[in-house]
Amino acid sequence: MTGRTLRLTSRMRSRSAPTGRRKGTTPKVVALGGGMGLSASLAALRRITGDLTAVVTVADDGGSSGRLRDELGVLPPGDLRKALAALCGDDDWGQTWARVIQHRFQSKGDLHEHAVGNLLIVALWEQLGDHVQALDLVGKLLGAHGRVLPMSAVPLELQARVLGHDPARPDDVDTVRGQATVALTPGEVQSVHVVPHDPPAVPEAVAAVLDADWVVLGPGSWFSSVIPHLLVPELLDALVETKARRVLSLNLAPQPGETEGFSPQRHLEVLGRHAPKLALDVVLADEAAVPDREELIDSAKQRFGAAVELAPVARPDGTPRHDPELLAAAYDRIFRMHGRIGPWR
Amino acid sequence: MTGRTLRLTSRMRSRSAPTGRRKGTTPKVVALGGGMGLSASLAALRRITGDLTAVVTVADDGGSSGRLRDELGVLPPGDLRKALAALCGDDDWGQTWARVIQHRFQSKGDLHEHAVGNLLIVALWEQLGDHVQALDLVGKLLGAHGRVLPMSAVPLELQARVLGHDPARPDDVDTVRGQATVALTPGEVQSVHVVPHDPPAVPEAVAAVLDADWVVLGPGSWFSSVIPHLLVPELLDALVETKARRVLSLNLAPQPGETEGFSPQRHLEVLGRHAPKLALDVVLADEAAVPDREELIDSAKQRFGAAVELAPVARPDGTPRHDPELLAAAYDRIFRMHGRIGPWR
Repeated sequence: MTGRTLRLTSRMRSRSAPTGRRKGTTPKVVALGGGMGLSASLAALRRITGDLTAVVTVADDGGSSGRLRDELGVLPPGDLRKALAALCGDDDWGQTWARVIQHRFQSKGDLHEHAVGNLLIVALWEQLGDHVQALDLVGKLLGAHGRVLPMSAVPLELQARVLGHDPARPDDVDTVRGQATVALTPGEVQSVHVVPHDPPAVPEAVAAVLDADWVVLGPGSWFSSVIPHLLVPELLDALVETKARRVLSLNLAPQPGETEGFSPQRHLEVLGRHAPKLALDVVLADEAAVPDREELIDSAKQRFGAAVELAPVARPDGTPRHDPELLAAAYDRIFRMHGRIGPWR
Repeated sequence: MTGRTLRLTSRMRSRSAPTGRRKGTTPKVVALGGGMGLSASLAALRRITGDLTAVVTVADDGGSSGRLRDELGVLPPGDLRKALAALCGDDDWGQTWARVIQHRFQSKGDLHEHAVGNLLIVALWEQLGDHVQALDLVGKLLGAHGRVLPMSAVPLELQARVLGHDPARPDDVDTVRGQATVALTPGEVQSVHVVPHDPPAVPEAVAAVLDADWVVLGPGSWFSSVIPHLLVPELLDALVETKARRVLSLNLAPQPGETEGFSPQRHLEVLGRHAPKLALDVVLADEAAVPDREELIDSAKQRFGAAVELAPVARPDGTPRHDPELLAAAYDRIFRMHGRIGPWR
């Protein structure tokens, strides 16, 4: 076992493009999410597999992405850009272009806070008329260690049922519209849905999920980055039907607004409520973020039929961020312990 | 002669990067200008040399470039972007990225008419803190057949002395500020200067001119794209001192505003007035754009010591634009007929 892992690790740290890998030696992994959580997931997974696909939410409506949606009627590119940057090549070229696409203009004018990569991705969409081809081209520019796909080619509006969104009416449940607003509500999010209600999935994302060895959900903003994938019917079907093993990676801390005061079990409950048919194989959590281990184990087993793996995955400096090396070690152990017998297909 | 030309031509049309050329077989050419004129010049010259450097004006203050100057205090990137696009690689990759950097957003919002390449170049300047390194990186992205340099690293304001800028005072000479305004004046431009008056040249541009076999000035907007290079003292010195042969390519028609009603001779006169010490080897003009051949020959000889070459270089469809193939054939003939004996250094 150790021998194989070492080989994988050293090969993955080399600069060889994913297309250059030999078949049968590396797991096919699909990571679903958005924002910083997905970037953490990708920074970890790129260390242990050469066959990595990110499937990204398209419900963002804040910041640079939100302005681009409003002005040009396009998909929000921000989370796609961050995922691409997280997968950039190890050499000067890849790292320079990653810095450039992450660069934000600072001014007192129209361009203030626009991220250059957002503008570039949108221009490619407009020029090529194909979301996936355009993102593949940016991936090629960056020498990316993996592929980045939107979950849907339709920009989505996230809506939430929120208890006490208006502090003056703490017992009322309101519908709150827009990811940026949902993320910051002072109320308690009960459930989320997307508009349009039945968005088509990107076929390449469905195919990647169905063909994967491992699917990784989370970490990330629970209602606005993790759960939205389950609201795209074709993608949810693929997640339910795939032969891949499924890992859910819990957050290190509740998120003010979205999941204020949520226990790990509560995170599982709300996710399960949005996808009652979804089974999971493993729930990964940081030991230090789990106040009641037994309760989490019970909840994971009853709700999803999943085992719980506890591992130190937070940065040693105490910030509630995942450490890429530690998260990679945890995924590597999970893939080996819960994987199929024998080499990857 | 024919054998060598054929070899050069076929090699130049191949995808081999300029750095891959053998020394001694291809002339080192520097083209100076801006805007569409420089693009035409580069589209022609890339066909006949593998060692091509564009030196570009930085006095543009209109359109997307002007807004970026105002908002971010940067060099105007537009003419640099156009030159890079004109040099893009022949393959799908190069051509796609050239289309992307030329792409302009269309909206009713802040991004309307901004060219993506302008935003990308500015982001690279801000990220790398080095104008030349940033432009070289875009050139590498495009697989460019040559190098693109700004004439100065300082954004310049073009100012003009114009007779009758205000039609109500046709006999008054006013100072008109800004390239966009000068280009459209209804008056008669007498002379131009730049502010600051003594801008530093980009050292790489000076070195390229001093090391060239051929320097090509024009075609292009006479007062705002061609003459400005002569207003950068170090660059003018290099143009005067270089051992390179110098070609001036005249425009196919006077430009409404800038050079309305100007004869070919008048174009030479105003250029000479801005650079009295500059000698030229060849003045290239389209036969159909020269009403009085003898007068042009006299003027070129007296003012610059130059021979006149007449060649059909306009597009066959009658638009006053240079045809890249015909212009390339004309430069090729000039380089052979007026060049040094023997192979290029």
